[in-house]
Amino acid sequence: MPMNEGPPPLLPVAEALARILQGLAPSQAESCALQDVVGRVLATDIAARLSLPPAAVSAMDGYAVRAADCTATAALLTRVGESAAGKPWDGIVTAGEAVRIFTGAVVPDGADTILLQEDVSATAETDGATITVNEVPREGQFIRPAGLDVTAGDAILAAGTMMSARLIALAISAGHTEVSVWRRPHVGILSTGDELVAPGGTPGPGQIISSNATYLLSFAAACGAVPVDLGIARDRPGEMLACVRAATVPLDLVVTSGGASVGTHDHIVDDLSASGTELGFWKIAMRPGKPLIHGRIDDIPLLGLPGNPVSSAVCANVFLRPAVARLSGGNHAPQMVSAKLSLDLKANDRRQDYLRATLAYDEEGLPVVTPARKQDSSMISVYAGANALLVRPPYDAPRQAGDMVMAMPLDPLL
Amino acid sequence: MPMNEGPPPLLPVAEALARILQGLAPSQAESCALQDVVGRVLATDIAARLSLPPAAVSAMDGYAVRAADCTATAALLTRVGESAAGKPWDGIVTAGEAVRIFTGAVVPDGADTILLQEDVSATAETDGATITVNEVPREGQFIRPAGLDVTAGDAILAAGTMMSARLIALAISAGHTEVSVWRRPHVGILSTGDELVAPGGTPGPGQIISSNATYLLSFAAACGAVPVDLGIARDRPGEMLACVRAATVPLDLVVTSGGASVGTHDHIVDDLSASGTELGFWKIAMRPGKPLIHGRIDDIPLLGLPGNPVSSAVCANVFLRPAVARLSGGNHAPQMVSAKLSLDLKANDRRQDYLRATLAYDEEGLPVVTPARKQDSSMISVYAGANALLVRPPYDAPRQAGDMVMAMPLDPLL
Repeated sequence: MPMNEGPPPLLPVAEALARILQGLAPSQAESCALQDVVGRVLATDIAARLSLPPAAVSAMDGYAVRAADCTATAALLTRVGESAAGKPWDGIVTAGEAVRIFTGAVVPDGADTILLQEDVSATAETDGATITVNEVPREGQFIRPAGLDVTAGDAILAAGTMMSARLIALAISAGHTEVSVWRRPHVGILSTGDELVAPGGTPGPGQIISSNATYLLSFAAACGAVPVDLGIARDRPGEMLACVRAATVPLDLVVTSGGASVGTHDHIVDDLSASGTELGFWKIAMRPGKPLIHGRIDDIPLLGLPGNPVSSAVCANVFLRPAVARLSGGNHAPQMVSAKLSLDLKANDRRQDYLRATLAYDEEGLPVVTPARKQDSSMISVYAGANALLVRPPYDAPRQAGDMVMAMPLDPLL
Repeated sequence: MPMNEGPPPLLPVAEALARILQGLAPSQAESCALQDVVGRVLATDIAARLSLPPAAVSAMDGYAVRAADCTATAALLTRVGESAAGKPWDGIVTAGEAVRIFTGAVVPDGADTILLQEDVSATAETDGATITVNEVPREGQFIRPAGLDVTAGDAILAAGTMMSARLIALAISAGHTEVSVWRRPHVGILSTGDELVAPGGTPGPGQIISSNATYLLSFAAACGAVPVDLGIARDRPGEMLACVRAATVPLDLVVTSGGASVGTHDHIVDDLSASGTELGFWKIAMRPGKPLIHGRIDDIPLLGLPGNPVSSAVCANVFLRPAVARLSGGNHAPQMVSAKLSLDLKANDRRQDYLRATLAYDEEGLPVVTPARKQDSSMISVYAGANALLVRPPYDAPRQAGDMVMAMPLDPLL
């Protein structure tokens, strides 16, 4: 490890992210039943096959009538039938007639208006009953016209949309049962380091339990990827490459953690040079998480996160989550929330700072952000206890309690 | 369906929710590997088995020394060994000695301070090299003491906590491989109504495709439940009960949609009376979603949502999500966000209003909420296109563009 090599200039976070995303795209579309696509991304646009509602329907319980018959209170009508949801009345409403109708039921031909049931008196709840109009209606009231919601042929969902339960409901209602979505990307997770002991093992002197792999496997899965555990690569030349080549499924992305420890750097250079092409050892203008490796291994895109668990986790939110979204056919830009700072902060240096923080909403729904007292990037407990990152741009001025600052909420599952 | 029965007084949303949650509890704990518990809820408290770090470690790359040897610049030390992550140096640092050390490596006995590598000159990167102190250190600097992060025996996670990737990392680091979590609740989803056609079918006159079941199955799964499809119950006495009894797994909750259509009401009363106990037909002070059924069927808690897809979806967010969280051993209170209203709104009536809306953050991170122009509760497309509900309390005064109002963000997966 040469010691007197000057550090490269720091790379801005946004530029690092843009470079990472540039090389990534979803690989393959597949057809999937709508009940199984929560979190998946559409590969094609979707048009409605059916109109909603398919015919004019009543918006209320009442009577379907002709407005021309109801121009005065005390007008009398005769009930001639009933239209219920799923059981339309197939006659034609003519002068002086009313059809009992319920919410969602088809408005019979001839009728142009719905009288609310509370605006009439009915002699009985049977055909032949006399209906007295107590309130003059507005013509057309309480009718939902055919196609009010969706018209057959309308574009309803665009390629690139991530599906939610509510979008599934829309697609189902419009006549679909399956849609084309991008395959979930296979993301290989590889830890590196002689100091790591697999979970369940007993750490010897100087050793620690490897938590990054399980974190990243859980993280990738919760982001919509299929995580592939590539194990722990020891600090020996060729071991990274061997672990990646041992994967039993084709990988869309390899994510490593660690590799900045003594000696490892050279193995990574050797492994990646033996197998690949461009190779970036980026020093990013962020804290924590300065060192990031970017390249390809066996022509698979590679993202090398820091070994420090907190740095690795922050980089996973800032870089890996958008990368998985891109490989899934979608897009992820973290939502930034303006929040009131609860304590003073000194001026920031040249790195964008991601302070572990608690974001709370007060009773009036206003966000307040409190950075953790200890910001040591080795402290997993502090990161685990945070629900947001307070993001300070490079050279941010000193801030006082009460100032508005930017926070990035952490996903409750990540 | 009696028509001149006066409507019961409207039940406030909070009271309805409290009554629903009252009867619900998680049923059974199970041991689960940590890599599989994202979104699951801890059934027991968790204490650390290991301290983090297990021994004092260096926070930086440099040299482990005795501060007493470095009280002046130009002090000279002799490099006697190297401590790297996973490869500690097991000697004792004595007067005039320095041990090369890297971030995360164990601080050798005898040393009490870390010199930054940029604050020294070294004649070589080998043992025996002479190290010149160029910057007088502060005693103890850049050492992370044993247990800084977590001390063995400390409580680190409380029962009732929903596990995230970052909490998994903490538990793994602290020596755990599996934890006790509550079993995912089995939630049966039952649609009711003669007007419904199963997805993929062709609706006849007056019929519509059933979207609620797929919506609720997707919703329940995304909330952490195991959804159980109970099919469509037609409007005949005994059919609901038959569908529920046909389930092949024990159910923790039955969710119905529909059942307020003509004739169905009586079947529900008959079915539930035949099988159960208390039965509430609630008219809740909310829009959409006024009618809600609450009771037990075969002694299984039952939540009857409206058949209107938008009402059903809003009620799922307001009532079902907290119910699933409670059955999962956790807790869900929707987060309310104060947001700037982008247009004027008239005064609200006696019902709490959930307007379909778009919540966007401007460049300064400030939330702006825009209610959809059409609020017809039959319009699935409007609900599908919303990402928040603008919540107006009963009797809310008229609001003007620029006023702050309360919004409930919709989960991107729900």
